[in-house]
Amino acid sequence: MPKAVAGPEIERLIQLLAKLPGLGPRSARRAALHLIKKREQLMTPLTDALETARDRITVCGTCGNIDSQNPCTVCTDAKRDPSVIVVVADVADLWALERASAVNARYHVLGGTLSPLDGIGPQDLTIDALVSRAHEPAVKEVILALNATVDGQTTAHYITDLLHNADVTVTRLAHGVPVGGELDYLDEGTLSAAIRQRTPI
Amino acid sequence: MPKAVAGPEIERLIQLLAKLPGLGPRSARRAALHLIKKREQLMTPLTDALETARDRITVCGTCGNIDSQNPCTVCTDAKRDPSVIVVVADVADLWALERASAVNARYHVLGGTLSPLDGIGPQDLTIDALVSRAHEPAVKEVILALNATVDGQTTAHYITDLLHNADVTVTRLAHGVPVGGELDYLDEGTLSAAIRQRTPI
Repeated sequence: MPKAVAGPEIERLIQLLAKLPGLGPRSARRAALHLIKKREQLMTPLTDALETARDRITVCGTCGNIDSQNPCTVCTDAKRDPSVIVVVADVADLWALERASAVNARYHVLGGTLSPLDGIGPQDLTIDALVSRAHEPAVKEVILALNATVDGQTTAHYITDLLHNADVTVTRLAHGVPVGGELDYLDEGTLSAAIRQRTPI
Repeated sequence: MPKAVAGPEIERLIQLLAKLPGLGPRSARRAALHLIKKREQLMTPLTDALETARDRITVCGTCGNIDSQNPCTVCTDAKRDPSVIVVVADVADLWALERASAVNARYHVLGGTLSPLDGIGPQDLTIDALVSRAHEPAVKEVILALNATVDGQTTAHYITDLLHNADVTVTRLAHGVPVGGELDYLDEGTLSAAIRQRTPI
């Protein structure tokens, strides 16, 4: 949009909105227009919500989750099994597992996966903190819930090696056919894993 | 996301982001996480930009464009041809024409198109204001830059009838093959129009 059409305020808003994942320059313009049209219903509440989040959201010093309290809601939840730590790469993965109600345990957010190509080494992740948590007497199992990608699996192997001396069982997520998935569309690796790890009905 | 995972602040931010066009619940979560991770680089500037826009953006009393000044930058631009008014349904259409540098004239934003099914009648649009602008002595042409849809064309006909007494030429956008478009993928109506309105090379 040329500068002459709208003021620099709108231009700046569009530029910032375009930096959000999932919004390109065109959809950022649509979003900006939508916000301006719905000033009371959407723009003001969103501005307030952003301000509140900016002022109150913090990273949990124990697990790396984000929350308005530290330690976070998950770490202070007495109903969760304290003997199990679920290791995830990112907060989004934690949220995904919680949405699925997949496990009732504590988490540990690594902040990424090892990736030599991107220059991400062990010191860039919270692996040291994980190792010291795994040595706490209460902890019996560490579930590595990492992506089934090269980086994810490299990270899983690295952590497994480090936890060799800790008195914990290290497990990983099962491979297999996604629920609702069609065999025809799955890759050979998944199909082989699904056959190898077949379960009796 | 269950409430127990993250605080209500994040939940509220996600809900509001999900109301933006182009963002669903899943991408709103990703956007919220991205904002929280990039607090200084993105969240603070976006909050400020929204606040500035909320406080300063206004609707132009003449043409209906949005801007931080009223009359807007377009209406006060002395380099634009004052004899031509380009009628668009929405501010987004105005921006699209300006991006294309398609015309160097003033605009008139209707605020939508006539749509009996949605209960949108002439009183819901800025048609009265357009008619009175069209009667100003300086105005010689009204270009109806409306969508080539049933509602857009109904609105165009309605406005054309109303401007019958005004001393202006009423024109509409040409129909034809979009630049870069392949004939094979075009509908019959477009192809027929492109043949009928063929131009000498």
